[in-house]
Amino acid sequence: MSRGHYYRIETPARRAAATAVIGPVRAPAGTVRRVTSQPVEIVPTVETELASFLASRSDVVDPVGPVYRAAADALSRFVLGGGKRIRPSFAWLGWLGARGAAEREKSVLTACSALELVQACALIHDDIIDSSSTRRGAPTIHLDQARLHRERGWDGSSEHYGISVAILLGDLALAWADDMFLAAGLTADELERAAPTWAAMRTEVLGGQLLDITAEAADDGTIDTAMRINRYKTACYTVQRPLDLGAAIAGASDAVLAGYRSFGADIGIAFQLRDDLLGVYGDPGVTGKPSGDDLREGKRTVLMAAARMAAAGRADGSTERLRALIGVPLSPDQLADARQLLIDLGAVAEVERRIDDLTERALAALDALDIEPVAAERLRALALAATRRDF
Amino acid sequence: MSRGHYYRIETPARRAAATAVIGPVRAPAGTVRRVTSQPVEIVPTVETELASFLASRSDVVDPVGPVYRAAADALSRFVLGGGKRIRPSFAWLGWLGARGAAEREKSVLTACSALELVQACALIHDDIIDSSSTRRGAPTIHLDQARLHRERGWDGSSEHYGISVAILLGDLALAWADDMFLAAGLTADELERAAPTWAAMRTEVLGGQLLDITAEAADDGTIDTAMRINRYKTACYTVQRPLDLGAAIAGASDAVLAGYRSFGADIGIAFQLRDDLLGVYGDPGVTGKPSGDDLREGKRTVLMAAARMAAAGRADGSTERLRALIGVPLSPDQLADARQLLIDLGAVAEVERRIDDLTERALAALDALDIEPVAAERLRALALAATRRDF
Repeated sequence: MSRGHYYRIETPARRAAATAVIGPVRAPAGTVRRVTSQPVEIVPTVETELASFLASRSDVVDPVGPVYRAAADALSRFVLGGGKRIRPSFAWLGWLGARGAAEREKSVLTACSALELVQACALIHDDIIDSSSTRRGAPTIHLDQARLHRERGWDGSSEHYGISVAILLGDLALAWADDMFLAAGLTADELERAAPTWAAMRTEVLGGQLLDITAEAADDGTIDTAMRINRYKTACYTVQRPLDLGAAIAGASDAVLAGYRSFGADIGIAFQLRDDLLGVYGDPGVTGKPSGDDLREGKRTVLMAAARMAAAGRADGSTERLRALIGVPLSPDQLADARQLLIDLGAVAEVERRIDDLTERALAALDALDIEPVAAERLRALALAATRRDF
Repeated sequence: MSRGHYYRIETPARRAAATAVIGPVRAPAGTVRRVTSQPVEIVPTVETELASFLASRSDVVDPVGPVYRAAADALSRFVLGGGKRIRPSFAWLGWLGARGAAEREKSVLTACSALELVQACALIHDDIIDSSSTRRGAPTIHLDQARLHRERGWDGSSEHYGISVAILLGDLALAWADDMFLAAGLTADELERAAPTWAAMRTEVLGGQLLDITAEAADDGTIDTAMRINRYKTACYTVQRPLDLGAAIAGASDAVLAGYRSFGADIGIAFQLRDDLLGVYGDPGVTGKPSGDDLREGKRTVLMAAARMAAAGRADGSTERLRALIGVPLSPDQLADARQLLIDLGAVAEVERRIDDLTERALAALDALDIEPVAAERLRALALAATRRDF
């Protein structure tokens, strides 16, 4: 086995196996609570909802003309072309766990699905900011639009045109997220309960992104800063706020809201720490991004911060080796060296330990919660999936 | 008088004189309709509403940390630092004209004010797309953030950092626009009536911007394309949809909605045509942008399209002179030459004629409408302000 594979990460086969274990879970027919007859696995439904909403935009898009139609189609392909739909899933489980009324299912599914449009904006704009070339296994929107400009022999900078279109399509995704959420058919009470969470989520993720680029610019590589970025860019946005959103729509008790917040904060950070490991050790066939991108970009992750700290405590030239391998273009051999160095410094073990601790605490919070059992079971399965590893 | 001043445009003194003529208009006390006791001039109220909403975001912004606080403050200064508040004003007049119930005033003013946050996003992102350096008399957000990066001696490209922060702050403004609209306290009925217009407006303006940059890239300088861009980038967004939004909140009749649409479409185009003239002949002290920017940038305006068409009909080298003076850096003498050429070609007169025709048609539509007289009077004054000229 080559050194490039010492740290194996989730593969399609493994993912399929995990899904088989976790199930689509349905409660037995005839139980008292109608809500337990709802599915816990909503990915296909989310995609149907998104496709239906995107199609409904034709009324406004088409009159503007074929140029806009083509751009909106590019956005639709992006939105429908991949993604684990993790935020809608957490929002749905938040609602299901808090025993939302079954007759509200359709509107809640639409509202939860709108989270994917917020995410489309975040990804499209992040890819401009990070100068990324690949997303979900395809060229990023700004590169793809630059290519169209170039192929047509248009005037001006192809690169600038590509970025400009991507800025506008990210904006469109963000505007449509709100339009979809507002048109979901939530009742006035549901909307009023959910609005503060919807607002906080979008404000927080933009703050997390700003912290991220500023930490990189200011060369702030402390664990504290990395954890703060994880909290706002990922934990709040990916797990905590979606759960909270679903719970708010359901009219959950304060106890459930607090329990979700605790579970969501911890498991959200654990998700990001796992993602940090994937950013260095991930299989491009699974992540859709070139392997080692985080190293080349010099991302300020907890993994890197732990490596820096460990290196600083040694007098063996580790700090210099680390510096030479991070934030620069890497050959395959150099990439393998960098990966091994992070292991040798104990940074990978440190991150795994943090994932374990966070998961343990999150599961304890979950166990203490009085929520619908199918949702609790699924949340537990998702939490465990975040801890999965295989050396 | 130098050639640079043959075409005089609104100045602060003239604007003050116009305001003195137009009002603030209040109906006499004791009239039957309570709604007529509402002010027609809401600019100070809009700014109070915006300041109050922006301050309310501290609950979410401050915990993220001082980096986010500082960036949000930059956004607040931008939002509160200028602008004619024209979209909130049209939305308010739309509601007032349609005889919205006086006791709903507070919520309606908040909802109308949210339009300024959509506009903040549009301006901040447009300035990246147009590579503009000045806005409202100050450096654009992306240039200002690049300067901060440079002054702090941070890592990486200052320009790219500035653009990245501006992308995120534009996103924040757009998200906050929706949050403010949703938190305005509209009733479920009001919100349901207004939501389709709110959605269409944001979708249309992004389409207009896309048409604009694509026409420039594809060197599509026809009048048809320029008029289409005006329609979606300005007329719908600045006049038609805001009026429609206010009317929808008020629960206006189909007749009023149709009349507003007709008035708004025409006067909105007239506004843009006036802006096109300002982009070439405007006083930087009034517009907040360097004079002649539209010429240097080679913007595809109706003015330019008319000049191109007129030049194509002559065999006197006008086409070549025009081409040499547009889309390139210009000395003050060249700028004066270009301005004179557009006049000699009859393009300025053609645009003025279009403004006159549109205004006449808009006023006829307005006269036919059964709306609250103070609002009709104000709409008429705004329409006339769009036609004001002085050779």
